[in-house]
Amino acid sequence: MRVQPSVVLYDTTLRDGSQRAGISFTVADKVRIARRLDEFGMHYVEGGWPGSNPKDAEFFRLMQDEPLRRARLVAFSSTRRPGVRCEDDIILRQLLDAGTQATCIVGKSWDFHVTGALGTTLEENLAMIGETVAFLRARGREVIYDAEHFFDGFKANPEYALATLRAAADAGADWVVLCDTNGGTLPHEVEDIVAMVREALPGVRLGIHTHDDSGVAVANTLAAVRAGCTMVQGTVNGYGERCGNANLCAVIPNLQLKLGYACVEPEALKGLTALAGFVSEAANLPPWDAQPYVGRNAFTHKAGIHVSALLKSTAMYEHVPPESVGNERRVLVSELSGRSNLQYAFGGDSLDPEQSKALLDRIKALEHEGYQFEGAEASLELLLRDEGQPRPFELESFRVIIERRGGEVPRAEASIKVRVGDRTVHTAAEGNGPVNALDVALRKALSEIYPSLSRVRLTDYKVRVLEGSEGTGARVRVLVESTDGSRRWGTVGVSTNVIEASWQALADSLEWHLLREARDTARGATATAGDASRAAAG
Amino acid sequence: MRVQPSVVLYDTTLRDGSQRAGISFTVADKVRIARRLDEFGMHYVEGGWPGSNPKDAEFFRLMQDEPLRRARLVAFSSTRRPGVRCEDDIILRQLLDAGTQATCIVGKSWDFHVTGALGTTLEENLAMIGETVAFLRARGREVIYDAEHFFDGFKANPEYALATLRAAADAGADWVVLCDTNGGTLPHEVEDIVAMVREALPGVRLGIHTHDDSGVAVANTLAAVRAGCTMVQGTVNGYGERCGNANLCAVIPNLQLKLGYACVEPEALKGLTALAGFVSEAANLPPWDAQPYVGRNAFTHKAGIHVSALLKSTAMYEHVPPESVGNERRVLVSELSGRSNLQYAFGGDSLDPEQSKALLDRIKALEHEGYQFEGAEASLELLLRDEGQPRPFELESFRVIIERRGGEVPRAEASIKVRVGDRTVHTAAEGNGPVNALDVALRKALSEIYPSLSRVRLTDYKVRVLEGSEGTGARVRVLVESTDGSRRWGTVGVSTNVIEASWQALADSLEWHLLREARDTARGATATAGDASRAAAG
Repeated sequence: MRVQPSVVLYDTTLRDGSQRAGISFTVADKVRIARRLDEFGMHYVEGGWPGSNPKDAEFFRLMQDEPLRRARLVAFSSTRRPGVRCEDDIILRQLLDAGTQATCIVGKSWDFHVTGALGTTLEENLAMIGETVAFLRARGREVIYDAEHFFDGFKANPEYALATLRAAADAGADWVVLCDTNGGTLPHEVEDIVAMVREALPGVRLGIHTHDDSGVAVANTLAAVRAGCTMVQGTVNGYGERCGNANLCAVIPNLQLKLGYACVEPEALKGLTALAGFVSEAANLPPWDAQPYVGRNAFTHKAGIHVSALLKSTAMYEHVPPESVGNERRVLVSELSGRSNLQYAFGGDSLDPEQSKALLDRIKALEHEGYQFEGAEASLELLLRDEGQPRPFELESFRVIIERRGGEVPRAEASIKVRVGDRTVHTAAEGNGPVNALDVALRKALSEIYPSLSRVRLTDYKVRVLEGSEGTGARVRVLVESTDGSRRWGTVGVSTNVIEASWQALADSLEWHLLREARDTARGATATAGDASRAAAG
Repeated sequence: MRVQPSVVLYDTTLRDGSQRAGISFTVADKVRIARRLDEFGMHYVEGGWPGSNPKDAEFFRLMQDEPLRRARLVAFSSTRRPGVRCEDDIILRQLLDAGTQATCIVGKSWDFHVTGALGTTLEENLAMIGETVAFLRARGREVIYDAEHFFDGFKANPEYALATLRAAADAGADWVVLCDTNGGTLPHEVEDIVAMVREALPGVRLGIHTHDDSGVAVANTLAAVRAGCTMVQGTVNGYGERCGNANLCAVIPNLQLKLGYACVEPEALKGLTALAGFVSEAANLPPWDAQPYVGRNAFTHKAGIHVSALLKSTAMYEHVPPESVGNERRVLVSELSGRSNLQYAFGGDSLDPEQSKALLDRIKALEHEGYQFEGAEASLELLLRDEGQPRPFELESFRVIIERRGGEVPRAEASIKVRVGDRTVHTAAEGNGPVNALDVALRKALSEIYPSLSRVRLTDYKVRVLEGSEGTGARVRVLVESTDGSRRWGTVGVSTNVIEASWQALADSLEWHLLREARDTARGATATAGDASRAAAG
């Protein structure tokens, strides 16, 4: 049973969010993000502007084969061009070709923009809005009308700005969305203007779309909802051009936990922190630690006066329970919290206090060097292995050669010598890059002795440069994610040498699989609750 | 002549700001920052809590020798402890020893905290507040009273919360500051509660202190000022515990440019962007690019449609002029952009429509392969080079070898053969990783012929894996940023082979520098408006 939303969530991470400097989603990224937004419970997912670039057009083609499950996918476009019939407008044709049931049309509300930027008359702009909306409605599309620069337009010429909204509403727009495109409007102005619009356009369903140029996009969104808007447009992590769009990761919990609006099911809200992390990974932007609600520091308490109070009552120093948004409390400089984190990571396998202390010290030292075990729980688990036991394999040496002659495609070749028990295997392989060559060579060396490795596949490989200011001499961190078809696990390596860092993560991945397999065989079990694979897949 | 402030700025970067996870100012940092805040025009600079740690005590000792020029330096403390006379309270003694004319005292407003955390009675808490304020006033100190958890306290028990404020005001506090310590209050609540406080405490000068846990700290500050608070407390860049404090870099321009309050002299406001950068450097935190007003992206335009309008009138897409806060406009070139972005990026060098079209098609094709020219404007500019002209150098071949034996540190060695004019240089070098070795070898090969390359330094090196699901066979994109001491420029390379991708970016970086140098020499100029270096450096 689904909760009836009282505020409709419209996510534009894939369109407006991708305008942020530094974001360049691949089509595959966009598909993965769209599915994740759908899963989370966004009601509308704006996928892109099919008329503006081939990548977005390809995205919509792919989505037609496998539609979203609950959310409505939205294709975006502007109104028809001045002086062109809708039927003849190529951009509207591409919009229809995107094959979505819902469409979003942006049109101008600010007289200054109509005459100055668009170079047409105020009358023609009204016709462009009305005809475009009617054209799409006649073809069975839901139409969300985005009134660009509405607040600036309203301040400059309220009659005309309202006339543009009426043109859209009279032509049958399902929603009319007031946009603060330049992000310059303040909350008290939003509240006043939305109230005036409601009075002028009774019965029209209104939405709000804000930008953070004044640092008040979230507050502007809340002010608009309190004044009667029932759709909020925004992006995950507040990504967007310039200073970004309204951050849905703050808007949603404010609406739901503080103002009592139902946006998503309460259980879904617990997925908000994971969603924020997923999108920042996909965008390859560092996570924003201080981010409200979902940031790593949002519920982080420093040792001292706060922590002792915190232990008495968490409500004293937390505005909402961290678990309500899927985040967690962190207490810095506290062995206790560290140990319980370890317990959590290893599930049932409890550690004695001495082991915990030693392991925590080791982890702190490694983290200081740049290791990161979030998403690399398998490497963390390997730190616990019994050093007295023989290892499944040990490296004697490797050598990787990358060679390029003139304009030719560069070659990469790796040779490797590993010891397995009392055997030594020496082999070599080529790859499409040095890390790939090393990966292929290692598997080749081990596959005869450990045939189950043929099931292990790398599903993700990430490189992050630490301390960027040292140029090519900087350390890099490699995170690898692997699967054997049922489990997923993550491993990590750090070095100034990208090949060495990759080696560490690759070797950890295969070793973890072999140890786990041996343990499962010993236990006669195929999967264990609370193991590192759960943490990696979570 | 100094403008009479109508809103008083109280900066707490050095105390509350330093609570942010990851910040650890040295005493020297604190002194430098305090002087800079003074120069900028903050009215109060809170320096620390002398009773809480020796670093802060030392800071105040140093500041006594060389006081701030205009701002009042403030020392912070809590009220006296329960059941102890002010005269016998060591923390208050240390506060007086700090030797500042202004002091800030924090006390409790929330009944739940008084009994639950402090473990004392509601009556004793009122006595602690009143007696502490009177004690300091009797010793000639200005007293700013910070009412901790005021908004939560007011919601729980308004009579008691107001009684704590009265205790401070009646004892002679110069200012009573309402604190939203947990950051959970929303703007409409702040507005209502401040209005009620004003009514209950006529004639008392009120301040506001907010935290960003709900993403509305700036809006809460503005709401409080509109409701009658005349002091704002906050930090530069919004630094602070958890999600941070109210960001003065957004509060000040909102108050001054939009709401008409005089905070600092208009000329001083132009130093805001530089101040933000200075403090982020001192804190050793990466600058927040999307930061309102002062971020690198705050006036960065990306979408093609916007840029053509922008060239017609900047007011169309900018809520305030970037120069009003000392920031500048940037225009990015990407697949989303149109011809006008290219025109803007290359300044005076106008392209004819055919060139533009060909270049845009080439850019789109390269972006489809994974290239990205945001932050790599120098590689973009190289696409425009005259293919008929001889190149400064051409690669014949390179070979990179990475070798590791057992537990040894891996070795990386690169050999390279390049042609420069009719000479061929063949050389080799080692590095702490393969890319570093290649970088060192290339410079070694070229430095004799092009001695100016010794000035070129890599300042950043980033790797992003594209299509992560192909594991180690995935393509990677390398972005490199370089400087010659005055200019900064960015270049890009893409390949499945990380060494090849790095080569492309490295080679582009050096080639761009050499071409630019040749052009500058030919023109007899040292810098050109509208060049790629400006875009990269802005």
